[in-house]
Amino acid sequence: MTTDFQNWASQRQTAIETFLDRRLPGTDCVPVRLHQAMRYSVLGGGKRVRPLLAFAAGELSQADDQRVTIVAAAVELIHAYSLVHDDMPCMDDDILRRGKSTCHIEFDEATALLTGDSLQTLAFELLSEKRLSDDADTQLMMIKQLANASGSRGMAGGQAFDLDNVGKTLTLPELEFMHIHKTGALIRAAVMLGARCSNRLSDAQLEKLDHFAKCVGLAFQVVDDLLDAEATTATLGKTAGKDAENNKPTYVSILGIREARDRAEKLQYDADRVLNEFGNAAIRLRQVTDFIIKRKF
Amino acid sequence: MTTDFQNWASQRQTAIETFLDRRLPGTDCVPVRLHQAMRYSVLGGGKRVRPLLAFAAGELSQADDQRVTIVAAAVELIHAYSLVHDDMPCMDDDILRRGKSTCHIEFDEATALLTGDSLQTLAFELLSEKRLSDDADTQLMMIKQLANASGSRGMAGGQAFDLDNVGKTLTLPELEFMHIHKTGALIRAAVMLGARCSNRLSDAQLEKLDHFAKCVGLAFQVVDDLLDAEATTATLGKTAGKDAENNKPTYVSILGIREARDRAEKLQYDADRVLNEFGNAAIRLRQVTDFIIKRKF
Repeated sequence: MTTDFQNWASQRQTAIETFLDRRLPGTDCVPVRLHQAMRYSVLGGGKRVRPLLAFAAGELSQADDQRVTIVAAAVELIHAYSLVHDDMPCMDDDILRRGKSTCHIEFDEATALLTGDSLQTLAFELLSEKRLSDDADTQLMMIKQLANASGSRGMAGGQAFDLDNVGKTLTLPELEFMHIHKTGALIRAAVMLGARCSNRLSDAQLEKLDHFAKCVGLAFQVVDDLLDAEATTATLGKTAGKDAENNKPTYVSILGIREARDRAEKLQYDADRVLNEFGNAAIRLRQVTDFIIKRKF
Repeated sequence: MTTDFQNWASQRQTAIETFLDRRLPGTDCVPVRLHQAMRYSVLGGGKRVRPLLAFAAGELSQADDQRVTIVAAAVELIHAYSLVHDDMPCMDDDILRRGKSTCHIEFDEATALLTGDSLQTLAFELLSEKRLSDDADTQLMMIKQLANASGSRGMAGGQAFDLDNVGKTLTLPELEFMHIHKTGALIRAAVMLGARCSNRLSDAQLEKLDHFAKCVGLAFQVVDDLLDAEATTATLGKTAGKDAENNKPTYVSILGIREARDRAEKLQYDADRVLNEFGNAAIRLRQVTDFIIKRKF
């Protein structure tokens, strides 16, 4: 990771943090406990991988930074909502997230439920309250894309598929189906929404970018599985080895660690090939991809 | 209730049911269990009060019926998601809704959580996938309004405020704050989104309509509290007397039944006064208001 990229990423991470800090209702705003829990669940943590992808895609399409900040924040809110609900006792029953207590532990289950609900809603509020694209129709398309990526045929559907198959043996295609939905769809939305903040890319270019995003989304999950299998709780900041303990199907459980690593590298190669067609304009996307796929190895 | 209104309402209830039946993912669509639970929680039940308000407001602004159907369905999905989550063990812990088992009883808690999440997402998907207003900017405003009405400073915020105050004594202003958010905001959104499906109403007219919607929203809650206090489980189709049992503050617990009834009638009077300014064009809104406030008495 170059200093240049580190600076770029750190500036964007700060921009997202600052924006979300200002935009989330304050803790003086009734209902106080809910707003505390929302801020607790969103602020001060996470690598902001999806926002970084949105920013990098926004640079490719030379989009306005303020627009991209809002779009990136919306995607991050969807991600944050999914983590809050995913950690609840009826789902993964996790007590640690980003190195601190999960929302339902720090507050209570009912508050965690409403926190996730409200973070999702806020994402759509962000996407509709200011002009974020060159025309309003494109903005409607962006909202549709985020909704599609988040719902029962996107992220939430992937989680449901995951739950349905705990303890079962999955084939590789089934596993990929799960990940394309569970994490891939939102990563794809992050890239596409970032790019659509300006109309500069052609439909053909957007299609290529979408293919890139699919590869990165899948690679991201393979790496996540590898991290869970290899890392300790201390370096990961969340309870490690949960997947194996819960007997959840992962790339590692199906392919083994070595083959899972190969798969991550192959996906990165495919992603790189798309980016090469964009030349120098894709430098940030290339760096973010490296950052995602090579993190912690 | 006149036959004319019964026919009108029944046609709209069928239209919403048909639309939602077609638009909700089929039970052959993976993840099957999640889609079964979504359909179970939305279809075949409920008075569709919010859709009826949206349709009536749409008639006032002479909006296209197909647009209003989609908008009405989106509002109903938000309502349905809130019921699914509200019934969960960490919230109201209810086992009966609309005369059948609640979602987490019929399926399981994790599925109920994801069902509510996905129904919310689908609402925003509906509002963004087709043109629903005379211009795209108005449609963005409609999305913003629904998000605002649903989130932490709307419906979910009202639920959080409610939970925070179980067992406590509320003042009347605190109780009204709760209801304006918990149920009022979404009812207001139903009316305003229905009306905004066409640009025919002036800003001044929309403002009046908004005031009407606030009165109806509050009246609706007063009646709901009265129903809970008076009705039996059999006629209500959900567990009756839960509010008193849970020691929840309601209009009835603060004002008593007689004064709560007076309050409902006063609110209806205020609502009627606004509608009178619209003359004959508001006939359906007048009828729906009667239907909401006088139901079951």
